[in-house]
Amino acid sequence: MNLLLRALRGEDTPRAPIWIMRQAGRHLPEYRALKEKHDFWTLARTPELAAEVTLQPVRRYGMDGAILFSDIMTPLPAMGLELDFRPGPVLERPVRSRDDVLRLRVPAQDEVAPFVAEAIKLLRAELGETPLIGFAGAPLTLATYAVEGSGSKEYETFRGFLRSESETAEELLDALSEVTIRYLRCQVEAGAQAVQLFDSWAGIHDLPTYRRFGARYAARVLSALEETGVPRIYIALGATHLAPAIAELPLEAVSVDWRLPLSRWRELLPGRALQGNLDPAALLGPWANLEAEATEVLRQGLGAAHVFNLGHGIFRQTEPDQVARLVDLVQGFDRHATSTGAPAPSPGRGGGP
Amino acid sequence: MNLLLRALRGEDTPRAPIWIMRQAGRHLPEYRALKEKHDFWTLARTPELAAEVTLQPVRRYGMDGAILFSDIMTPLPAMGLELDFRPGPVLERPVRSRDDVLRLRVPAQDEVAPFVAEAIKLLRAELGETPLIGFAGAPLTLATYAVEGSGSKEYETFRGFLRSESETAEELLDALSEVTIRYLRCQVEAGAQAVQLFDSWAGIHDLPTYRRFGARYAARVLSALEETGVPRIYIALGATHLAPAIAELPLEAVSVDWRLPLSRWRELLPGRALQGNLDPAALLGPWANLEAEATEVLRQGLGAAHVFNLGHGIFRQTEPDQVARLVDLVQGFDRHATSTGAPAPSPGRGGGP
Repeated sequence: MNLLLRALRGEDTPRAPIWIMRQAGRHLPEYRALKEKHDFWTLARTPELAAEVTLQPVRRYGMDGAILFSDIMTPLPAMGLELDFRPGPVLERPVRSRDDVLRLRVPAQDEVAPFVAEAIKLLRAELGETPLIGFAGAPLTLATYAVEGSGSKEYETFRGFLRSESETAEELLDALSEVTIRYLRCQVEAGAQAVQLFDSWAGIHDLPTYRRFGARYAARVLSALEETGVPRIYIALGATHLAPAIAELPLEAVSVDWRLPLSRWRELLPGRALQGNLDPAALLGPWANLEAEATEVLRQGLGAAHVFNLGHGIFRQTEPDQVARLVDLVQGFDRHATSTGAPAPSPGRGGGP
Repeated sequence: MNLLLRALRGEDTPRAPIWIMRQAGRHLPEYRALKEKHDFWTLARTPELAAEVTLQPVRRYGMDGAILFSDIMTPLPAMGLELDFRPGPVLERPVRSRDDVLRLRVPAQDEVAPFVAEAIKLLRAELGETPLIGFAGAPLTLATYAVEGSGSKEYETFRGFLRSESETAEELLDALSEVTIRYLRCQVEAGAQAVQLFDSWAGIHDLPTYRRFGARYAARVLSALEETGVPRIYIALGATHLAPAIAELPLEAVSVDWRLPLSRWRELLPGRALQGNLDPAALLGPWANLEAEATEVLRQGLGAAHVFNLGHGIFRQTEPDQVARLVDLVQGFDRHATSTGAPAPSPGRGGGP
């Protein structure tokens, strides 16, 4: 079996596989060239274009995994929530009442986002040995956007809504959970070999609020996917304080941010493969610094299953050369070579801490 | 001595004093009326107007403390960093190089922001028994804005700068620390009876980065203020993971957000007074819910020094009536009345969980 899938299933692999959140997209010149001809939403909804963008970082860097080029908001239009990107997602009519929730459609599995299934089929034919990761937004995070209507620093409209309309919020989360289950099942049936559930905004809540409105619905989605047999990854950001609930989710792997070292996450999330957790800002600094920070992540990841990744999406101003050297470093680091986990010599690297 | 100052010094007071971050400002109709006539920066820099805005919530709610109406960016113009508010702070020319840092001025104590000292003198004459809290941005947070140039979701320019220009960053932090010391000393000499150091963006860093660029400079500022004898409060947001370094800062009180309960913070920050930690979104929900959440905060705060506050600034859309009822609830809660800490009957309250 493939290295990435083995690590996601909990195996202590000879080296850590690497892929990078948002690897397909804005930091790549070949993506920006396509973007001059098509807007984001067209790229995401046209199977040939979405497949091409997904392949770009795999070709350029030899990543150990591909992640579908799409957006977590993708399932919302089929529910009746029309979206626009300016450039962040904006809902024409946010959900603010029980009537708004009752009006939502729960589309059939093949109607959530048929263009995504098409893109996945094209990709599987192209990708060969490289596994394809599908993804979706977690119900809590989708509800955050559905109610707030756009990106926000504090999401206070949604946080107030959870208090003043808590039962309506649960009805909304029920509908979003069902759609997310269908959407991810469709992705797996089309060929996705792992899935990642993004709960980007879970970290703004305290633990009881997260258990009621977040973990409960994430668990429902993840449980429903167990029968598909693909490894399930979950990510929340700034969520150190939510670790007790995340540790109980039915899944194989957790993607963690840089706020705590992997050694600490391993104590907090026993028995799970860990994915992460280099600070994406490290890629904006000099190579010597990046090498030192990445090597520390690799060392912290020793002794159990580890998929190397960033703690959050790559920044658009990242130089592709930095990414290429990082991939080279990670793919040259033999986890079983020495007791200290020193990197194996790799011709592509220079500089030093 | 006043209830608020006693609690900040670590005393288990008969009831928890209450004040609210951003109590002076945008959620109050009397503030918005002034704002129609003067822009934010004029209000902050005109002593009579800043004093009037500071007094508004004390008059309306009978808060147990007043906090100076100002902005954490206030000291930057005297350093040569011109500011504009649109409405968030924007620097005309952000700091991006060592030359930019060498060009910064370190103004004398009475030249940092003389209008602030004037406002404080006016306020002390008006406030009577109600203590006045002065404040400043912590060096790390000021540096974040000085380099980024404006508010941002990720502050990646600054995070990259810490890596590519780490020594220049330290020179910048040195200058900002010295100015912050002078600015806070000036506030205390003018009459501020406590000071709060705001490290709003500390939580985006991991612990080693925070120790090097954050805690070290916050500690320098807080140490320098020890001789003034006023209680020192520190706040960082989303900073659960930084607790080991925050616990070592030289200060009397830590203001904490809602992500962890006060009982847990007490374990993480032994021997410190705690301030907080109601989620400001609780004020956007119905009273029964707000009462239940606030009562839980009061219960969690029993047994040691506690100043009731929100975990972050009040949202502008908060109804003043909700704040009035919250103040009534907190001021009617007798911390020593019963072993379970049930609220004392208070005529102004209605509803129930």
